[in-house]
Amino acid sequence: MVRSKKSLAEIGEVGFLRRLLPSLRQTPGVIVGPGDDCAVVRSGAQTLLTTDALVEGVHFRRDWLTAEQIGAKSMLVNLSDIAAMGGRPRFALMSVSAPPSLRRDELWRLHRGAARAARAAGVAIVGGNLSAAEQLVVSVTLVGEARRPVLRRGAKPGDALFVTGTLGDAAAAVQMLELGLRRTERGRAARDDAFVLRRFAAPTPRLETGRRLAETRLAAAMIDVSDGLVRDLGHICAASSVGAVVEPDRVPRSRAYDRLLGPDIAPALAGGEDYELLFTVRPAALKRLERLRPQLGAPIHRIGEIVAGRGVRLRDARGKLHRAASAGGYEHFKLA
Amino acid sequence: MVRSKKSLAEIGEVGFLRRLLPSLRQTPGVIVGPGDDCAVVRSGAQTLLTTDALVEGVHFRRDWLTAEQIGAKSMLVNLSDIAAMGGRPRFALMSVSAPPSLRRDELWRLHRGAARAARAAGVAIVGGNLSAAEQLVVSVTLVGEARRPVLRRGAKPGDALFVTGTLGDAAAAVQMLELGLRRTERGRAARDDAFVLRRFAAPTPRLETGRRLAETRLAAAMIDVSDGLVRDLGHICAASSVGAVVEPDRVPRSRAYDRLLGPDIAPALAGGEDYELLFTVRPAALKRLERLRPQLGAPIHRIGEIVAGRGVRLRDARGKLHRAASAGGYEHFKLA
Repeated sequence: MVRSKKSLAEIGEVGFLRRLLPSLRQTPGVIVGPGDDCAVVRSGAQTLLTTDALVEGVHFRRDWLTAEQIGAKSMLVNLSDIAAMGGRPRFALMSVSAPPSLRRDELWRLHRGAARAARAAGVAIVGGNLSAAEQLVVSVTLVGEARRPVLRRGAKPGDALFVTGTLGDAAAAVQMLELGLRRTERGRAARDDAFVLRRFAAPTPRLETGRRLAETRLAAAMIDVSDGLVRDLGHICAASSVGAVVEPDRVPRSRAYDRLLGPDIAPALAGGEDYELLFTVRPAALKRLERLRPQLGAPIHRIGEIVAGRGVRLRDARGKLHRAASAGGYEHFKLA
Repeated sequence: MVRSKKSLAEIGEVGFLRRLLPSLRQTPGVIVGPGDDCAVVRSGAQTLLTTDALVEGVHFRRDWLTAEQIGAKSMLVNLSDIAAMGGRPRFALMSVSAPPSLRRDELWRLHRGAARAARAAGVAIVGGNLSAAEQLVVSVTLVGEARRPVLRRGAKPGDALFVTGTLGDAAAAVQMLELGLRRTERGRAARDDAFVLRRFAAPTPRLETGRRLAETRLAAAMIDVSDGLVRDLGHICAASSVGAVVEPDRVPRSRAYDRLLGPDIAPALAGGEDYELLFTVRPAALKRLERLRPQLGAPIHRIGEIVAGRGVRLRDARGKLHRAASAGGYEHFKLA
């Protein structure tokens, strides 16, 4: 296939949408898809709504992620919010602001990445719009449903604190990207770079795990780790009016992380964009959690507990408690 | 009140949201509002979803619109899409990308403008997010419902073609703004400037009219005039596989338009952003439309008819047909 380098300025929004429409399949529940003033959908249960944007230079650099990865990630960060409610994603709308110089093939690949990520999650893209802008901004809204959404405010003192997967890989990737990826080297280090980069560029939304934790009523409170463990746990604490104690040694890190960053635990505690699930479990439910653990669809690790009080503290190897600094956590206007 | 000139860079997203939350009221149907991973809403009938963005330098200039007007307009352009389906808007999500230099009071006024426009339409803002960016981008997603949505594809040859209100005022306003508003003058011309500017800065979504046209089944096909009459009528024609004939002399223009632009009909035919409703009515329903006209909540004008064939044509005073050029119509990448 010959790559088209025609810019957006030469196609226009209507032309783009006209070519896009046939690629969007008819999906159950979509009564009217893109191409009218609104999409019409039929949705059961409780409807979940969430929106999140990826901004060039803030959330990604175009030399760090391919257009396809940017599209997929714009969907995935929203899917992760649905996962954190224990919901099922259904419909998506995509709003893209792009520099007129963006090549048409990049725009297509961006859309293809989003469409693939959506399809893999059972989501229909039912609308969107495209505008000119100075920098690339991809904003996605997701509509989902949940029979029993798990909120941030359900935590109680005594709950055990769990996290899925490993943390800090995305932060490690950003460090590697800033240093310059060792693409040409052979052996372990380059493989580790590739591993953490994949975690950063193509995170997996924990939809199945979130849904099982919700439907089995195992999770009392849940959030996805997008802004960093300490900061997101802080959100659970604030919403639930509780405190939390984390044992840093128990925070799960990948082998690649260990080899790249050694004993530096800060990126695992404060680095954002891992999109793992952080949830609390009542003491009475822990045995049931053990039985159901193989069916959760993701490894889980117990990293601490919910306590009375406020804020997040870290318990060191000698049992001493330290107030956790969230300074490394991700907050856009602090970084930008 | 002392105006705060603290920039976004000094507050951060979390600080902004924390201060925003108490101002968002609890609304029927909102089970969980902003502050969790997703909003949870209960929605009946058929759910409408739509998204649209306003981009600085493309859709507005910050010296043309106040922050409050930008916020309100970001909501209104989406409300207009719900109106064009004959729907009832319910829930909104707002995604703002803003330059870190944006003053905090401007951001508040932007939100206040959106919140007021939402409240006036019975809409609950249930979520959103805020990111840094080089230019201001305000993206809104609306969720609505409709018992009987009116689509673009319902037009048939023989249908009469109607439009609400007047067209071309927003285009006239843009011309005035580009020439420099005559703010200091007194008398008619300055008043006309103010009138068209208000039409551009604070368009009224035709929600009530759209709903009545849908519920009475009077409108067979409907769209809002956001990209210009010729272009939006072209969307109805394409979706319905029909053509249309417009009589330019019948296209309603305001007195201010007439005084500012004289006999130049082009801005009324091709200028965008009027957010009036364009709809078709079966011949058999015309008498009923006359009876119900006083209850529609907006003046309506018959401007032409749907015909067999393709595309939009203009019938001149001598009855001769001309292919309508949509070149003046609004397409972002063509303008940007």
